[in-house]
Amino acid sequence: MNGHVRAVPLAKAYRLLNHGPTVLVTAVHEGRRGILAAAWNVAIDFDPPRVAVILAKDSYTRSLVEASGRFAINVPCAAQAETVMRVGSVSGHDLTTDKFSHFGLRAEPGITSDAPLLEGCVAWLECRLIDEPHNQEKYDLFIGEVTAAFADDRVFSDGRWHFEGHDALRTLHYIAGGEFLSTGPSIQVRL
Amino acid sequence: MNGHVRAVPLAKAYRLLNHGPTVLVTAVHEGRRGILAAAWNVAIDFDPPRVAVILAKDSYTRSLVEASGRFAINVPCAAQAETVMRVGSVSGHDLTTDKFSHFGLRAEPGITSDAPLLEGCVAWLECRLIDEPHNQEKYDLFIGEVTAAFADDRVFSDGRWHFEGHDALRTLHYIAGGEFLSTGPSIQVRL
Repeated sequence: MNGHVRAVPLAKAYRLLNHGPTVLVTAVHEGRRGILAAAWNVAIDFDPPRVAVILAKDSYTRSLVEASGRFAINVPCAAQAETVMRVGSVSGHDLTTDKFSHFGLRAEPGITSDAPLLEGCVAWLECRLIDEPHNQEKYDLFIGEVTAAFADDRVFSDGRWHFEGHDALRTLHYIAGGEFLSTGPSIQVRL
Repeated sequence: MNGHVRAVPLAKAYRLLNHGPTVLVTAVHEGRRGILAAAWNVAIDFDPPRVAVILAKDSYTRSLVEASGRFAINVPCAAQAETVMRVGSVSGHDLTTDKFSHFGLRAEPGITSDAPLLEGCVAWLECRLIDEPHNQEKYDLFIGEVTAAFADDRVFSDGRWHFEGHDALRTLHYIAGGEFLSTGPSIQVRL
């Protein structure tokens, strides 16, 4: 990780997802790592800090989340748009190595879990799976409690995103067909 | 509604939320309407089209969703940033009229439900509540099946958002403290 990574207080972890970025979900089990792209993620609570993410039944990463009870949410930036598309273009089920090795992605284990934290992202949330079999089976909905959170302080500090002057670090918001929106100007409302 | 509103095929309704906008959730029961601002919303399926939203226990709109079994997700735009903050600044529990009357908001019932569709938004999803008492009680998580969807064709057509030239119609992505990000430039990846 680079020298800009700072811990985010757990009560503020939801702010990392509040503006709706597309994320990369990672997990590891018995040495095999998985990573998938997920536009369908959401903060659902701040105390305790909880998030939810949709993991398709056929995804390899899902099987690792179920086996390990841990996952990480990595928030990628504009500089990683191609990486996000690449990891979404192939299934870990179809690879002989893991997807990190296959694509040459650098990552390291988290502090509270071994789920990989991808280098170059602008935020990371380490999560413990809250087992909810009905949601997982019926809706592919996985709920996690955030156990640690980090962000790149060039673009997130004091609980706020501030991307001005850092276009390559802006978060990605997926539309379709390989197209993302990055974040735009700030709008401040004072009532 | 204005002349730019077009129906969105149900299978593409998730695209309206895919990029992570902050939304306004509306509902009506026995003539009383409610509206609240929700950054915590997510598409969870495209077939059948389903969405999820967090509705706090003390919100008046939540009681209307529970009573009516219907709600609408309205996607507001930059021109409505102050409206989004205003509706979030007061509870329907504390008003003698409904929040639409209180703030002078114009809305009309949907096609498949009576939940109000707010004028000036850029997309709308009408939803039928899928009753999940455990999720609603434990996580404040409400799941809906989308029964109709619409968007403003100046910024959404053929299943894609395209905001260029329409800054006032860009969606809002809430940070904190009255600050939103609007959408920025498109990033197209071709592998």
